[in-house]
Amino acid sequence: MINMAKSKPIYTMSNTNQLYIPTFDDVKAAHKRIAPHIHRTPVLTSSYLNNLTGAELFFKCENFQKAGAFKVRGASNAVFGLSDEKAARGVVTHSSGNHALSLSYAAGRRGIQATVVMPHTAPEAKKAAVRGYGGEVHECEPSLAAREEMLEKLIVKTGADFVHPYNDHRVIAGQGTCSLELYQDVGQLDAVVAPIGGGGMISGTCLTMSNVSPKTKIYAAEPKNADDVYRSFHAGEMIEDDAPQTVADGLKVSLRPRTWHFVSTFVSDVLLASEEEIIDAMYLTWQRMKIVIEPSSAVALATILKNKELFEGKRVGVIVTGGNVDLKKLPWMNS
Amino acid sequence: MINMAKSKPIYTMSNTNQLYIPTFDDVKAAHKRIAPHIHRTPVLTSSYLNNLTGAELFFKCENFQKAGAFKVRGASNAVFGLSDEKAARGVVTHSSGNHALSLSYAAGRRGIQATVVMPHTAPEAKKAAVRGYGGEVHECEPSLAAREEMLEKLIVKTGADFVHPYNDHRVIAGQGTCSLELYQDVGQLDAVVAPIGGGGMISGTCLTMSNVSPKTKIYAAEPKNADDVYRSFHAGEMIEDDAPQTVADGLKVSLRPRTWHFVSTFVSDVLLASEEEIIDAMYLTWQRMKIVIEPSSAVALATILKNKELFEGKRVGVIVTGGNVDLKKLPWMNS
Repeated sequence: MINMAKSKPIYTMSNTNQLYIPTFDDVKAAHKRIAPHIHRTPVLTSSYLNNLTGAELFFKCENFQKAGAFKVRGASNAVFGLSDEKAARGVVTHSSGNHALSLSYAAGRRGIQATVVMPHTAPEAKKAAVRGYGGEVHECEPSLAAREEMLEKLIVKTGADFVHPYNDHRVIAGQGTCSLELYQDVGQLDAVVAPIGGGGMISGTCLTMSNVSPKTKIYAAEPKNADDVYRSFHAGEMIEDDAPQTVADGLKVSLRPRTWHFVSTFVSDVLLASEEEIIDAMYLTWQRMKIVIEPSSAVALATILKNKELFEGKRVGVIVTGGNVDLKKLPWMNS
Repeated sequence: MINMAKSKPIYTMSNTNQLYIPTFDDVKAAHKRIAPHIHRTPVLTSSYLNNLTGAELFFKCENFQKAGAFKVRGASNAVFGLSDEKAARGVVTHSSGNHALSLSYAAGRRGIQATVVMPHTAPEAKKAAVRGYGGEVHECEPSLAAREEMLEKLIVKTGADFVHPYNDHRVIAGQGTCSLELYQDVGQLDAVVAPIGGGGMISGTCLTMSNVSPKTKIYAAEPKNADDVYRSFHAGEMIEDDAPQTVADGLKVSLRPRTWHFVSTFVSDVLLASEEEIIDAMYLTWQRMKIVIEPSSAVALATILKNKELFEGKRVGVIVTGGNVDLKKLPWMNS
């Protein structure tokens, strides 16, 4: 457990000092900006899961999104919001997950270079996927220090714009377009449940819903094995996880100042799910809804199944964050 | 290889003697009849698969259908077309697959009894699923003779209406509603590709498309390991498979007179795919489209990937027949 105040990564210092919090106008502008580059994903329902939970669930299916996850919303908003001059120097990030794919996809659409710092231990399939979208992979040792050193060098060398996976106002505004579409498609909701890792999706959800539907409760769904948000929420201060182990590999990262702002201001509660509950919810979703979702996405349904009393009789939006999963290594195959 | 003329199962004799071939009016009536009981399934597209094939593919996603497969269309049409008097005696069928689930689902919706004859070797999960929909399972020895004997006894005892999985005009008319919706949603198509087993889906597709869009070519996609339709098509007479082995377990059955009528009259060609090609197409669909489809469904895409020259530059409907698959036994896990 690391208190955030003690750890100040170089690349967030300047951001923190000038903490611009995006507004709902930024979300609306983002939606207009990224519309040509993303899918308007469908909202699915399941009578089986409605019966099982007693709630009316509306699944916003970002597993069908470009590059397979919601992350392309924030990444596209950052990339297409750059001036031509800035864009010409490219974009850079660190990520071994969906943000890496999404930034590469968006940069490719704009015809500029994306450079991604990844630990050399990242799966080859992920590196190949980034390259498949035209991104450049720079491999570093799997430590925070090594990652930041390489990132800093690349920024200095190329002048590329750093697009943080979530502690970036453009990214948060972009993620906010997801619940905006959900609201446009299904109307008033009593609650929205979304998985939380670094908090980009939850922040965007809070930003949008607090404007279009302030009475809607926002629940952050988190793996018990990576419960930094739960602990932060109850401590009233940002607490980091230290290398958590969870099947929900997209949710291992910790809050940053911009996302902590939204979590601490707008989230109704943080709900936890065990590894087994996450895997069961993922399996159930594949089996009954016939959609491929990644473990991180299943955390939302897992917490709904576990806390039925919160959702019974309610209209509940569920953000299905992505569908990028190694089909040859499914978590229920180990049991 | 068994010539159909030599094998005359008792339960099809009377049907064969009075071979009523359904009309497009039957399809329209079926659509109205079953609409309250089925999903209007979505049509999905994939820019990745369009790029890969050079065609514009429209996937009609019956994996999202009630009971997980298109079969519920035909089963519902049969069940809800019965007079109250006939319905009161229930319905009966033999099937160890999606038709068993679908008939049980439809009977449950109408509040009547469905009885299903299944070999005792059928997976417990399938039996449990039938019972879950309120169906009654009667287990028999895994032979054609045992199945027919038990079926005949049940019909005599209960007076239940026998709903054959595909050699039934009500079932064929019901399956025809699938391509009717596809046509309504996407308009003119140059071709439609659908998997073929006994031929119920292909027959319904021929029936509908020959009326609404006679220029659309119909391709039947078949596993090379169960190529009775391919051989029948080229021989000009109905030939049966003898216990074929294929991963596409929904496509092991053979043509019957009503479906042979449609195949021999309207199908442009029968395209074959190997086991490896079927598994690859299934994997690719899961990976890129993020949908769970069963091996039988993947045969259509497999044949398109293999015969690109037929489909390049064309608008092609692809019937995704179902999504009922054992998630713990995926075919690529063996390789």
